[in-house]
Amino acid sequence: MSNAKVLPLLEPEAVAPCCPPLNERPMSADEAEVAAKMFKALGDPVRLRLFSAVASHEGGEACVCDISDVGVSQPTVSHHLKKLKEAGLLSSERRGTWVYYRVEPSVLAAMGALLAGAAKAA
Amino acid sequence: MSNAKVLPLLEPEAVAPCCPPLNERPMSADEAEVAAKMFKALGDPVRLRLFSAVASHEGGEACVCDISDVGVSQPTVSHHLKKLKEAGLLSSERRGTWVYYRVEPSVLAAMGALLAGAAKAA
Repeated sequence: MSNAKVLPLLEPEAVAPCCPPLNERPMSADEAEVAAKMFKALGDPVRLRLFSAVASHEGGEACVCDISDVGVSQPTVSHHLKKLKEAGLLSSERRGTWVYYRVEPSVLAAMGALLAGAAKAA
Repeated sequence: MSNAKVLPLLEPEAVAPCCPPLNERPMSADEAEVAAKMFKALGDPVRLRLFSAVASHEGGEACVCDISDVGVSQPTVSHHLKKLKEAGLLSSERRGTWVYYRVEPSVLAAMGALLAGAAKAA
């Protein structure tokens, strides 16, 4: 007897946060609650720069130790990265002394589609 | 003598708010200032639902008179639509009694690309 099974691939859609393109139909209150939380997390200039710093860093991940040129203190950087993680935009992994953050591509793709889909048909 | 000239077409990029995909390079402070303002405008659940209501309304435009099922008063709807306009996400036009709001496709496309571009390469 074999345990080998073909597992279904986890498509990006499967972990997408929510929501059809903005112009498909009016968003429900629940959908808006989820999506607004993510937009809000990117709605601060410092947080957006930090997010971009992580996303553009070598290997698509970074620790606080890698990010020093945004002009805020290390505790502030840590605070913002935690907020981005809470919003579901970053995942994290501790390795030794440092926590490494990484962008969540499926979430970004879903947010992008939410906006770009609406743009296409407008 | 003819005044006829072939004018360059205004590509969506020409009116795009800013910014390369998030993972291309760290965002500058100025770029983050512009982009964060737009994300912030979508970072409120009621405002996001109203935005979606306009985007999904017949013809891609709506006046306050068309939007009544989000559970907030008409002055509140007007207030939020104005905020979305100030952030560059909606344009408006007065026709008779009502102001009609319309989504700005180029801005949405740029925001979508900012996120989706980052998702693709992550």
